[in-house]
Amino acid sequence: MTLAELCDALRAVGMKPELRGDPARAIQRVATLEDAVAGDVSFLSNPKYEKALQTTKASAVVLRPDVEAPPQLDLIRVEDPYAAITVLIVRVHGYRRHRRVPPDPAVTQVHPTARIGENATIHPGVVIDEDVTIGRDAVIYPGCYVGPRCRIGDRVLLYPNVVLYEDTVLGDRVTIHANTVIGEDGLGYAPVDGQWLKIPQIGHVVIEDDVEIGAGCAIDRATLGRTRIGRGTKFSNLIAIGHGTQVGEHCLFVAQVGIAGSVTVGNHVTMAGQVGVVGHIRVGDRATVGAKAGVTNSVPDGETVLGAPAIPIREMKRQVVHIARLPELHDRVKQLERELAELRARLESQAGGVPARE
Amino acid sequence: MTLAELCDALRAVGMKPELRGDPARAIQRVATLEDAVAGDVSFLSNPKYEKALQTTKASAVVLRPDVEAPPQLDLIRVEDPYAAITVLIVRVHGYRRHRRVPPDPAVTQVHPTARIGENATIHPGVVIDEDVTIGRDAVIYPGCYVGPRCRIGDRVLLYPNVVLYEDTVLGDRVTIHANTVIGEDGLGYAPVDGQWLKIPQIGHVVIEDDVEIGAGCAIDRATLGRTRIGRGTKFSNLIAIGHGTQVGEHCLFVAQVGIAGSVTVGNHVTMAGQVGVVGHIRVGDRATVGAKAGVTNSVPDGETVLGAPAIPIREMKRQVVHIARLPELHDRVKQLERELAELRARLESQAGGVPARE
Amino acid sequence: MTLAELCDALRAVGMKPELRGDPARAIQRVATLEDAVAGDVSFLSNPKYEKALQTTKASAVVLRPDVEAPPQLDLIRVEDPYAAITVLIVRVHGYRRHRRVPPDPAVTQVHPTARIGENATIHPGVVIDEDVTIGRDAVIYPGCYVGPRCRIGDRVLLYPNVVLYEDTVLGDRVTIHANTVIGEDGLGYAPVDGQWLKIPQIGHVVIEDDVEIGAGCAIDRATLGRTRIGRGTKFSNLIAIGHGTQVGEHCLFVAQVGIAGSVTVGNHVTMAGQVGVVGHIRVGDRATVGAKAGVTNSVPDGETVLGAPAIPIREMKRQVVHIARLPELHDRVKQLERELAELRARLESQAGGVPARE
Repeated sequence: MTLAELCDALRAVGMKPELRGDPARAIQRVATLEDAVAGDVSFLSNPKYEKALQTTKASAVVLRPDVEAPPQLDLIRVEDPYAAITVLIVRVHGYRRHRRVPPDPAVTQVHPTARIGENATIHPGVVIDEDVTIGRDAVIYPGCYVGPRCRIGDRVLLYPNVVLYEDTVLGDRVTIHANTVIGEDGLGYAPVDGQWLKIPQIGHVVIEDDVEIGAGCAIDRATLGRTRIGRGTKFSNLIAIGHGTQVGEHCLFVAQVGIAGSVTVGNHVTMAGQVGVVGHIRVGDRATVGAKAGVTNSVPDGETVLGAPAIPIREMKRQVVHIARLPELHDRVKQLERELAELRARLESQAGGVPARE
Repeated sequence: MTLAELCDALRAVGMKPELRGDPARAIQRVATLEDAVAGDVSFLSNPKYEKALQTTKASAVVLRPDVEAPPQLDLIRVEDPYAAITVLIVRVHGYRRHRRVPPDPAVTQVHPTARIGENATIHPGVVIDEDVTIGRDAVIYPGCYVGPRCRIGDRVLLYPNVVLYEDTVLGDRVTIHANTVIGEDGLGYAPVDGQWLKIPQIGHVVIEDDVEIGAGCAIDRATLGRTRIGRGTKFSNLIAIGHGTQVGEHCLFVAQVGIAGSVTVGNHVTMAGQVGVVGHIRVGDRATVGAKAGVTNSVPDGETVLGAPAIPIREMKRQVVHIARLPELHDRVKQLERELAELRARLESQAGGVPARE
Repeated sequence: MTLAELCDALRAVGMKPELRGDPARAIQRVATLEDAVAGDVSFLSNPKYEKALQTTKASAVVLRPDVEAPPQLDLIRVEDPYAAITVLIVRVHGYRRHRRVPPDPAVTQVHPTARIGENATIHPGVVIDEDVTIGRDAVIYPGCYVGPRCRIGDRVLLYPNVVLYEDTVLGDRVTIHANTVIGEDGLGYAPVDGQWLKIPQIGHVVIEDDVEIGAGCAIDRATLGRTRIGRGTKFSNLIAIGHGTQVGEHCLFVAQVGIAGSVTVGNHVTMAGQVGVVGHIRVGDRATVGAKAGVTNSVPDGETVLGAPAIPIREMKRQVVHIARLPELHDRVKQLERELAELRARLESQAGGVPARE
């Protein structure tokens, strides 16, 4: 593709690129400033990497209108270079292509009662259990297990070794990365005579359209009813979701987040890495939970919280400052005590030696 | 089943249910207050959900004697509704039933030296290595790997893609959820000339009777001797246990707990989510470790600890309060300094201008 | 082997063992003090376990020159018993031996375009995709999936159910434990109209020679370019590495560490359990990050940091002490306020009742 064509692609999604350089220059790849070679287009979004502009071998760079760049570089100037490069990666490279294999009963185990949609690919080593439904164009990679009565939508993508326990429901275009487990039993036990009596976990998990789940996650089935992950939500890796928890739409969860059971998470919520949330609370719409926060109380809509126990970010930042100044505060109190003692001594001596306190 | 039969089931385990309503009413399912429809029995245990009593479509509700409920609902009143509903879920729904498949050498890999117990189910895609013993009625789901010389008890349940490294021992009725790994090498290296020399990990893992392990966990084999998980203990998901650690009986570990190596955990210990415990310490019997705590010192029997570094919960709660009041404390110190200066100035002026300090 | 031969093995690596006891005594096993029986050699390195010396049934014990031991025990005295026992475990027990199986197309799925090195073992249930290269003497356990165009070095060891996404590169002698995933897509999305637009992740992962990765880890492929784990680095279990992150050589990461994307970690860095590191920062060479730390700013070479947000360990220890003394500080401020009020009252009464403040 040429730089002119890349600019057209940006204009097609409503951006207003300004090109400096040769519109006919051919571009083969998108690359980082550091890795780029001739024929690559690169980008600068985070000012931290501005120095790399001086040394990059890229043929062209996407960057903000106000950033200086060496004269030999061709430039595409846009307001939001990160969004622009996303568009260009999609245009130049596209999404992963999946090898299609014809169904082969010798290397897969598809139960005779299962219904497999048109053009779905079931890779070797997959086991599809009783009464499963799989949509059109789904791709199920080797080593996946799909339990009884699961219902899987169109264009679903299960990477290797994904396990779906019975009755799991996946909407259309759901993507689940390797070695993630959906629908295992949660930690449901009742204490009886100092031992733990298992409570049958008879609910299930529902994952709505366009959700993407990272690798190595575990999402408990509900004890009763459903655990739900809302439409368009994206999870990173090694995330644990407790039984009966409801996660809203278009949320973003970073790696190693852990949500206990019976939590309600609103829409458009961001949880940073290693966040923990206790059971039976609500995290409101558009809330943001900072990395490593431990959320122990419900969070209002739109609030940003931080710390363990988590509190609004403004208060947390104040606390951090105050904690850092604790040694100084200590010294000031000691100084006060010294001066007060001295003052009392002087006062007493002025008063003629009468003891100041009885 | 009828409401009368449900009450009988509760009486059979020593509870004293009081029925308000029609003993002959038929019940098909247990459900949450929110999800229930006609024919369902539901329950109210956590007062947070009391409002749902007004709108539930359940035919009957299990709840405490002192809770008000709309007149149209049939009620089973008991002291502990949570324990009662557990009994009813077991009675009405029972535990998961596992499809039994006849042994099929074409789709499993069972080494000729392995001994498989009567009525055990080995699903397609399972690999059983040399000299393995598997008990009666065990169920091994697709994709599991059982390494050389593992000994697996009766009625053990391995969900898909569980991996047991060599010499792992599982007692009777052990359940391990999908994608959990037992017996991998721990982080055992000796530093030699700035590099890490691997220490062969020649110990193994022993998991005692009636343990249940969640999905995606990793339990290291011991360097020497054994890593042990005691009888009746229950783990949630994504838990990491270090080499040589000993966990006692009837413990409960919530998701994402991490225990370093050579730790001793007593009996009846509760670890909440995302707890971390450093190596070579002891957590006493009946101790409770609060969510996200970082335990760096041994914990006495019966103690509840919180925070990182973890301290007794009473102290931690005081600390949290004191930290929250730090801005106020700061203001008070500033005020004291101001007043003291003023007082000194007055004292000096009273004393006729003689400097108060030398 | 005899004790004399064990001493020879230690001398061969430059140690200076002193033997007390019978050089001809035969040793069958290495064991802990607690587990050892006659015929075992054990060791004492951590003084915590010194009491076990009195009761051990070991035939011989490796320990420091200055530690007292009961007269009936044969002793090998060395300066560093932990390093010595490592040498002896390697000598007496050696590393895990892997059963070699001949290639069997009936139970594996090796794409015709893949090149498999001499003497490599591909276990049943493995899937090797298009254009893969696997080195000599590699061992790939059941259930592994090796995606298109992966390049795997000599003597690589993949335990069961490891998943390598396309284009992953593993150097020589890399070991990856069970159920780890390498090269899944990272959390790369651009916000568009309140929804998340997926950014194709077109980079890959490179793992250099002699790296060992624990069980259940997840290492994201780069968006562009590569995620890299440097030569000789060792990871424990359930570790998450974000897209584009560069980890240096000979690092040691304890379980459940999470590193965000675009981080640079130097050489010889230690990260303790459950550490989190935010994106786009640098952790310097030989830095140490304490357990559960949350690293939010770059860490200089050689620094040790602790806490969340992480700060140098000296400051953190001071903070912890100051926080623990907060209740006392509070009391002191209250006392100061009381005394100051009293002093002012006295001063005013001395001054003849004139108000001290206007």
